[in-house]
Amino acid sequence: MNSNLSDSPIFVVIVAGGQGTRMGMALPKQFLPLHGKPILYYTIASFIAAVPQAQIILVLPENDISKLQMVLQHFEERIDLTVVSGGGTRYDSVKNGLKGIPMDATVLVHDGVRPFVSCNLIHRCIEQTKQSTNAIPALPVTDSVRVLNQNGSAAINRDLLRIIQTPQTFLSNILLPSFEQEYHSSFTDEATVVESMGHTVNLVSGEKNNIKITTPEDLILAEHILKEMLLAR
Amino acid sequence: MNSNLSDSPIFVVIVAGGQGTRMGMALPKQFLPLHGKPILYYTIASFIAAVPQAQIILVLPENDISKLQMVLQHFEERIDLTVVSGGGTRYDSVKNGLKGIPMDATVLVHDGVRPFVSCNLIHRCIEQTKQSTNAIPALPVTDSVRVLNQNGSAAINRDLLRIIQTPQTFLSNILLPSFEQEYHSSFTDEATVVESMGHTVNLVSGEKNNIKITTPEDLILAEHILKEMLLAR
Repeated sequence: MNSNLSDSPIFVVIVAGGQGTRMGMALPKQFLPLHGKPILYYTIASFIAAVPQAQIILVLPENDISKLQMVLQHFEERIDLTVVSGGGTRYDSVKNGLKGIPMDATVLVHDGVRPFVSCNLIHRCIEQTKQSTNAIPALPVTDSVRVLNQNGSAAINRDLLRIIQTPQTFLSNILLPSFEQEYHSSFTDEATVVESMGHTVNLVSGEKNNIKITTPEDLILAEHILKEMLLAR
Repeated sequence: MNSNLSDSPIFVVIVAGGQGTRMGMALPKQFLPLHGKPILYYTIASFIAAVPQAQIILVLPENDISKLQMVLQHFEERIDLTVVSGGGTRYDSVKNGLKGIPMDATVLVHDGVRPFVSCNLIHRCIEQTKQSTNAIPALPVTDSVRVLNQNGSAAINRDLLRIIQTPQTFLSNILLPSFEQEYHSSFTDEATVVESMGHTVNLVSGEKNNIKITTPEDLILAEHILKEMLLAR
């Protein structure tokens, strides 16, 4: 790990594995339109704007690779990206996306259905990773929360809770060996995978607008956020 | 507690203490319009529809009592409600609202800015309270969540977490004595107050549409939910 990290190559693994069942629609959610362009278009465009030098790896279910042209046709210039097919779990999908990534690289793993990740957040994740090998965006919780236990449930101090977002960002030197493990059901995101190898997870401030679009309500909110972003230009 | 609970009088304490600062608006959020009527109108109307026999107690900041006419003018028939002024904390506000409620009553404590509570949820809370002295609506968590600790943070199994909503519903025999305690900073809702007296909290299924309107994004979503509800009539 003695290479100059400021020249470290950057890889973005965009995981777009959703089947759209929660939306009650035939088209997987990452291909649903926002102002006429697929959600996945905005996600990819956010990373191209923030880190134009990065190599983008898109993980898609095999059946959906043919739909990629729906996304790519909206880019004015030809874009370079690597497409790999997803696995049965998110862990397998990310593992497929990591193949071929070298050591001493910075790797951002991002949900395909989080189109509004900002340039600022992407840069902060990369900077924090240079300092501490990883960066995980997190937001405070505003609702009262309880945790189920053998006696029923107990209040939990919400000030101590953080909702986790993406891009979860790692030095490849810790991410690649972590994905050599056997899959475990506790691996709900990349942070839990790396943590299970004994690495400390470093939280950075996430963003309210960096929503994950998984329900029709989210899609309504996304249309609104996009309108605000277009007006602010 | 040997009275016939099915004839138990019902009290609804609606807490509308918000100052609207998170909205960045001069008008407190409970008075902001949705399709031309204040949020608080819909909240009150939901309870009148579900439990017309209930006595409604509205807890408002002293300065906002004059704004109540903005709400009441939208009801076609004259409605009976008791207005009391709020305190410095939610605990104090609810405590003020509970004054005069007798023993052997069913008390629903509800956020003024949750206008879309359904008839079904209100009825389920009342039924569960008859069986087990209280009922707290709760929803599963869909995001990855971490909990801060002395070493940084740790993953927490989101399957065990529940986001808490209102109406938090109680038999007055347990609620009134619980609010005789000294205030404690862990009292973030009524469930935590009752729990601190040794009572077991009983969760019931909450509802996705039963949102708490606290940000401009919530207001956008609320307009959408209301439109869907009006179309479904």
